[in-house]
Amino acid sequence: MLANIKIVLVETSHPGNIGAVARAMKNMAMGNLCLVNPKVFPSADATARASGADDILAAARVYPTLPDAIADCQLVLGTSARCRTISWPELTPRECAEKVVIHEPGNQVAILFGRENSGLKNHELDLCHYLLRIPCNSKYSSLNIAAAVQVVCYELFVAAGLQENNRVGDKGEIPLASAEQMESFYGHLHQALIDIDFMQPDQSNSIMRRLRRIYNRIHLDSKELDILRGILRMSQGNKAKTKRS
Amino acid sequence: MLANIKIVLVETSHPGNIGAVARAMKNMAMGNLCLVNPKVFPSADATARASGADDILAAARVYPTLPDAIADCQLVLGTSARCRTISWPELTPRECAEKVVIHEPGNQVAILFGRENSGLKNHELDLCHYLLRIPCNSKYSSLNIAAAVQVVCYELFVAAGLQENNRVGDKGEIPLASAEQMESFYGHLHQALIDIDFMQPDQSNSIMRRLRRIYNRIHLDSKELDILRGILRMSQGNKAKTKRS
Repeated sequence: MLANIKIVLVETSHPGNIGAVARAMKNMAMGNLCLVNPKVFPSADATARASGADDILAAARVYPTLPDAIADCQLVLGTSARCRTISWPELTPRECAEKVVIHEPGNQVAILFGRENSGLKNHELDLCHYLLRIPCNSKYSSLNIAAAVQVVCYELFVAAGLQENNRVGDKGEIPLASAEQMESFYGHLHQALIDIDFMQPDQSNSIMRRLRRIYNRIHLDSKELDILRGILRMSQGNKAKTKRS
Repeated sequence: MLANIKIVLVETSHPGNIGAVARAMKNMAMGNLCLVNPKVFPSADATARASGADDILAAARVYPTLPDAIADCQLVLGTSARCRTISWPELTPRECAEKVVIHEPGNQVAILFGRENSGLKNHELDLCHYLLRIPCNSKYSSLNIAAAVQVVCYELFVAAGLQENNRVGDKGEIPLASAEQMESFYGHLHQALIDIDFMQPDQSNSIMRRLRRIYNRIHLDSKELDILRGILRMSQGNKAKTKRS
């Protein structure tokens, strides 16, 4: 998955940025990095900023020209911050990810990122099927190149559905409390509030109704309910002891 | 818009990262940066990496403790790469953006980003209503702090709908060709193909059908159509001259 998509950096000046791009790619499970005529590569700066993604740097391929780098690609997208004067079909990163990952997954794809200061030149955009434009502040629209790669690769990763569903709360190890358990809890709570003299037995239900709204809203699991009931028991017991003494 | 959301960096070690965060925020039209006990700040490294977002750095507020930084916030989210052992409600950046920007826009919100090496401590997460987890490669899950801020702020910006719809192709300055114009073009094309001896007048329509499929697919605007018709006219004329000579 995502192995058919290459990130192509065109004439990057700062090797640190190449390293940061490698890290951004690996964070999103992408590994295919191509460099067109980089100013300095390989470089200790790149390796330092890659911060553990040096395997991506080691596997990176260097090309003398952009056409060499994209020769095998059926779909070429060029990132651009500027609004071009000629009409060009544009995609956002999310639209790009849907197109590349969901609607047309069979293509070899190249996504181009231009020079730090001047981006891609028009003759390079002529090689692209789409402009890829990251939504951003129109008054300050130049993203760092690694930040731009991060956003695009993040959208590809999300579209590919590669995130592992390891949310602890969703694992279902501890089931949510059932309605019966909750009713039992509310009965216990009511009695405890009476025992500690917070409520009178014959008092209206409006306080209990508010407490129900609070505890229903937080979707207690059965372990959390055990803890709360333990607290109730102790408050009842302590009060009893206090009363006895 | 987005002014109610503060980005809180907790004990950041590298001032360059603070600068990169300021840039990432400004790119996404966010300006409220809080620093809890930063190792070095202000710093020339931060200003250099901010790359024009030094107004964000200048306006950043520094706090001695995290509770000070979030005292005025009703909703606190802590980013975390690690899977915590206790059950914690989690949001993705997209879910966070929908909640913060669309469903509950009235809250003062803090989004916390921890130390570069060790993230947020459990006692800091105790102050959070939600864990915010960026979907990423489970085998290499530690994003650079500025990259993490970039992804989160990007989702907030997209949810806020702040991107200007300045797609050149969508501006409608040049309307798409009408069906009548396209039919006129196909008639011209057919005649030109006969004139240059590519087709015979009585030939089957399968070639014309293929050509229609091609040109219908690309949604020509009327200016592009003018260019193509000019080409057709010239090819007809040149052929006529060749035939005459």
